[in-house]
Amino acid sequence: MNYKMIGYLLGQIMRVLGLLMLLPLLVGLIYHESATVWGSFLGTAAALAVLGTLMTLKKPEKKDIYTRDGMATVAAAWILVSVLGAVPFTLSGNIPNFADAVFETASGFTTTGATILNDIEAMSNACLFWRSFSHFLGGMGVLILILAILPQSDTRTMYLVRAESPGPTAGKLTAKMSSSVRNLYGIYIALTVLEMLLLLFSNLDPVPEHRMSFFEALNTALSTAGTGGFALKNASIAAYDSAYIDGIVTLFMLLFSINFTMYYLLLTKNFAQVFKNEELRFFLGIVAFSAVAIAVNILPIYGNIFKSLRYSSFQVLTMISTAGFATADFTEWPFFSQMILLLLMFVGGCAGSTGGGLKVMRILLLCKTAFREIKCVLNPRAVVSVKCDGKAVDKEIVRSVSFYFVLFMLLAAISMLLLSLDGHAIDTTVTAVITCLNNVGPGLNEISPSGNFAGFSSWAKILLSLDMLLGRLEIYPLLVLFTIRKK
Amino acid sequence: MNYKMIGYLLGQIMRVLGLLMLLPLLVGLIYHESATVWGSFLGTAAALAVLGTLMTLKKPEKKDIYTRDGMATVAAAWILVSVLGAVPFTLSGNIPNFADAVFETASGFTTTGATILNDIEAMSNACLFWRSFSHFLGGMGVLILILAILPQSDTRTMYLVRAESPGPTAGKLTAKMSSSVRNLYGIYIALTVLEMLLLLFSNLDPVPEHRMSFFEALNTALSTAGTGGFALKNASIAAYDSAYIDGIVTLFMLLFSINFTMYYLLLTKNFAQVFKNEELRFFLGIVAFSAVAIAVNILPIYGNIFKSLRYSSFQVLTMISTAGFATADFTEWPFFSQMILLLLMFVGGCAGSTGGGLKVMRILLLCKTAFREIKCVLNPRAVVSVKCDGKAVDKEIVRSVSFYFVLFMLLAAISMLLLSLDGHAIDTTVTAVITCLNNVGPGLNEISPSGNFAGFSSWAKILLSLDMLLGRLEIYPLLVLFTIRKK
Repeated sequence: MNYKMIGYLLGQIMRVLGLLMLLPLLVGLIYHESATVWGSFLGTAAALAVLGTLMTLKKPEKKDIYTRDGMATVAAAWILVSVLGAVPFTLSGNIPNFADAVFETASGFTTTGATILNDIEAMSNACLFWRSFSHFLGGMGVLILILAILPQSDTRTMYLVRAESPGPTAGKLTAKMSSSVRNLYGIYIALTVLEMLLLLFSNLDPVPEHRMSFFEALNTALSTAGTGGFALKNASIAAYDSAYIDGIVTLFMLLFSINFTMYYLLLTKNFAQVFKNEELRFFLGIVAFSAVAIAVNILPIYGNIFKSLRYSSFQVLTMISTAGFATADFTEWPFFSQMILLLLMFVGGCAGSTGGGLKVMRILLLCKTAFREIKCVLNPRAVVSVKCDGKAVDKEIVRSVSFYFVLFMLLAAISMLLLSLDGHAIDTTVTAVITCLNNVGPGLNEISPSGNFAGFSSWAKILLSLDMLLGRLEIYPLLVLFTIRKK
Repeated sequence: MNYKMIGYLLGQIMRVLGLLMLLPLLVGLIYHESATVWGSFLGTAAALAVLGTLMTLKKPEKKDIYTRDGMATVAAAWILVSVLGAVPFTLSGNIPNFADAVFETASGFTTTGATILNDIEAMSNACLFWRSFSHFLGGMGVLILILAILPQSDTRTMYLVRAESPGPTAGKLTAKMSSSVRNLYGIYIALTVLEMLLLLFSNLDPVPEHRMSFFEALNTALSTAGTGGFALKNASIAAYDSAYIDGIVTLFMLLFSINFTMYYLLLTKNFAQVFKNEELRFFLGIVAFSAVAIAVNILPIYGNIFKSLRYSSFQVLTMISTAGFATADFTEWPFFSQMILLLLMFVGGCAGSTGGGLKVMRILLLCKTAFREIKCVLNPRAVVSVKCDGKAVDKEIVRSVSFYFVLFMLLAAISMLLLSLDGHAIDTTVTAVITCLNNVGPGLNEISPSGNFAGFSSWAKILLSLDMLLGRLEIYPLLVLFTIRKK
């Protein structure tokens, strides 16, 4: 392990984190918030700048970073960001308990969107912005951001990107790292700005409650971009009760759940490749089936098919994209709808999107593997390979996807067992672990869309924060960190 | 597919099933039950004898049975036995609804032990015996029984045994099929008789309620042998409230969850091989840890450690052996205990025992695979193989165990989705599928140890019966049956 280089990179991350805290500081100043609020961001930013600069004073001579180092760096960086990012919440007094603040920050950066806040609307704007902004930063990846900012195009950075990127395969754009990271960030920012602008059109609505202020539109767009789910209202998106806003958020939850490479292909006019993409078609198929099935199931509640389609499609996309916004409390819907939504949590977004979960690609490969296995058992002499996009998938990938699923379920079982010591009902405990590991947000019972995670003990909140990090980083990087001493 | 041979084998099975029905008939006669009761067994037995004889009149010339035929035969045989075995329940009027009777019979033969009966004690003795006896028959395997009875020691029967035997690997005793099957049955019967005799010693107890009649001891022993869980009392084993009976049943649930090959090895004085067996040690480790953890957790309820150990060890073994007897309603215990018990459902007995679940061997291999995978990701250049009992496990087995788990979870998800259409609470629906697929018996909420499956619709009962068969036959044989027409 190249500890010096890891320390140097962590120092850089602290400097960047300090720099990023100037934005909520600015928000606090603009909205004339108390000095305690903006002061806590200023103080933390200054401390991070000093510490980070000290750690980066001496550039290490040996700059090589390999798989293990990359993973350890990513894991350490995410833990650091979750803990240090929580400081202003506690200093400002907005979230007095530090374990609560760490949970909220981890939930932000991992784009889970689970909250311990009973009254979101009582928060300062600076803190609200920091919550939504953490979704935006975490969605694309904390380290990828740094790569985009800093001019270092070495191949060694590949190991950092690979450790942080979601999905079973690294994106196809990784050949020229720096420029492709900038391309992805360009698409990401463009889509976010577009959503914000479209949300601002809600101000044309004659009913004042249906309108979003600039600050609300900005935060909602940042939160959707990372498929996070933090909202500015206690009632989440339901507070606006606007079909227009619901529609825009639904559309962008869909767009942010799609592999960003698709947009790059569209921009470079490779339409055929996009339409043929099996993962995308599978994802759209699941969304369409679920939305229609639930719409029919909840028709008796909402009376007409348009209204039930509006609520069902929003809820389907909020679960599959793992955003976790709410326009309705699905735990009051029929059990068939609830079951679909619970299962969608595991699916998540496409590989290379900001969505969480196991990723559509993995689910697709798991289904194909299961079918292949059935064929093999029925015809022991037949040689059947798993195909995707017309090509045979590398056996090593098929194998590793199955093993990842096994590992994921084992970790889920262990987490559930530990969390059950906190004494919450079985459905709360089980769905808390599922929703955190998949970076979704809401669950059943206590943590339904109208509830929150405030009822858990501090140690349980830290456990669930770890689950969120395990889910976001896809398990292995954190395991590297916890097994360092054994080597 | 060799349809003629499959039909011939199914005919033989019908004849044997008819023959076996003479036993409950005898019970009805002994206890002077109404002619409707014993007549329904007599009538069904006669019809089966006639039909079975007609189907076996012409012995097929081509007797070859391969993997696909073997699987199709096993699947068809089990469906046949579940449906035809249900006839006397309905004819006798003891279970008027035929879907209920099929559920009860499938639950019997698959050794699940889930019941739709609100009042078990209102049943005739003949029907009660048929329920327990189906556990005994299903535990070892319906077809293995036929192989033991009929003198055919061809290698082709291997495919039948392989398709019906639980666990990832066929037993080591399969070299000389017929004789080894008889050895296994010898051990099985000896253990069952021993349990019955030991249960009869409860009659030395001064308190009348603590005693078991001969009929009760016989039925309880048959039910324990198959790790089924049908009891003669509405309160299950709790009705006797006897530490002695609890202890005996606990001991035998443990013994019947162990690979029967171990007993054969003990008889042939291969002690070293037994003590070194990793699956056995892993199984005993899980049992000991769970029993102690739960005993500590429920100590405040029961006041003293002996009483809480008595209830915890019974409950742990009833779940891990997948018997499903009850001495306490664990859904009233702390959630930590409940979570342990829910997770134990997936573990099940050792391979080659009568226990259900995924089997200890598979869980052991899944854990080892997960650890191996972590090692591989951390050290990409290292070649690490999964080892068991000191030897490297064949890669093909490691692979197939992971894929089996994926398939199992996919089927569970599909079943939960379909069952949720029946409108039961999420915890009832989820645990109903889990308990049926793992052949356990009880679950949460409506189907807690003090509840039952009576509340489900007829179609839901058939779906759950299929889940029980899928679990008992380990998925593939039933899939062969459902995909026959595609070939």
